[in-house]
Amino acid sequence: MYTLYSMQRSGNSYKVRLGLARLGIPYRRVEIDILQGESRTPEFIAMNPSGQVPLLEVAPNRHLAESNAILWYVAGGTTLAPEGRIERAEAMQWMFFEQHSLEPNIGAAYFWLCLIKGGRDLQGHAIEGWMENGYRALGVMEMHLSKHDYFVDKRFTIADIALYAYTHLAHQCDFDLGRYPAVRAWLERIAREPGYVPMDFEPHMAAAE
Amino acid sequence: MYTLYSMQRSGNSYKVRLGLARLGIPYRRVEIDILQGESRTPEFIAMNPSGQVPLLEVAPNRHLAESNAILWYVAGGTTLAPEGRIERAEAMQWMFFEQHSLEPNIGAAYFWLCLIKGGRDLQGHAIEGWMENGYRALGVMEMHLSKHDYFVDKRFTIADIALYAYTHLAHQCDFDLGRYPAVRAWLERIAREPGYVPMDFEPHMAAAE
Repeated sequence: MYTLYSMQRSGNSYKVRLGLARLGIPYRRVEIDILQGESRTPEFIAMNPSGQVPLLEVAPNRHLAESNAILWYVAGGTTLAPEGRIERAEAMQWMFFEQHSLEPNIGAAYFWLCLIKGGRDLQGHAIEGWMENGYRALGVMEMHLSKHDYFVDKRFTIADIALYAYTHLAHQCDFDLGRYPAVRAWLERIAREPGYVPMDFEPHMAAAE
Repeated sequence: MYTLYSMQRSGNSYKVRLGLARLGIPYRRVEIDILQGESRTPEFIAMNPSGQVPLLEVAPNRHLAESNAILWYVAGGTTLAPEGRIERAEAMQWMFFEQHSLEPNIGAAYFWLCLIKGGRDLQGHAIEGWMENGYRALGVMEMHLSKHDYFVDKRFTIADIALYAYTHLAHQCDFDLGRYPAVRAWLERIAREPGYVPMDFEPHMAAAE
């Protein structure tokens, strides 16, 4: 069984939890509180020199980092991972876009405005850039989603999961999605997908029901 | 034949040129000067809403963006692209690491310190963060390369190409690689790979030789 090192309020960790839930893959979950330095201990750095979550133990002492790489690993061979040559590349295109243009802006805003007490004052100089670049990324997504229901291959894939994580948090950290109706409709579409779990879903809560 | 929209001095564009050269794939090259706004024209935005190079036309009016996704597309099915389940995921891990932890720091430093006149003054407040985070990324690479000749699968792959582009520019933009002997040895190893071309390689120069 996989072991997933994950933080409850991490959008990157949520991607993997959402993918595993959709795929019905059981796993052991270890909560790592990066705000308490738990991803910077010698033990954790030995598993992931980048000191980040999520991290998936795929075999004894073999660990895979980077949320989007983990999604490809767990979804490989399923309908969630497009394997046609151009479709695979297009899914990767959107997932690199997510890590390069969306997550560093909306993810940074979420981290400092929602998770860190006093973060708004500490990062006052940076917020304007995050907003500008975050809105630009949302504009690129809006343009695509105004013509397509999903990002790739006319169906729900790991590219949607990757982009969903931080986009669905944007309204919590000052972003106004009013001008992005196609993005809003897509967010609602993803939340209706079979196997969907919200970010605050706790497996043990479900087991106790 | 592919058409590649590329900028000579863009590290992300260089990745694709290096991959195509190694694979011996001919292509038509269109120079896009992003410093002159050529990636923000209506014609270019229609091809790539993100307004970035590189961009590969893979079929008439079908364009693929994001350097690392393009590398997967052009190298798919060759020895440059690991296709084993864990090896593919590990290659992606390093390529997402590159776009998330290396390029936004060393790439930003290269852009503002080497390409933009007066960039050092304009971005004075940001340089310290780029240096700190860039050195952290180099440290993660050093840890891996002190035990491995290449990033994945004990051989030269597109993960090496992706990481090489900005790492080999680091010394031009204030980074001192003195404390990273394994990174330096790897840079030299990549430059000796068959089919290697330097960043300033111009195809028409070779044709004229």
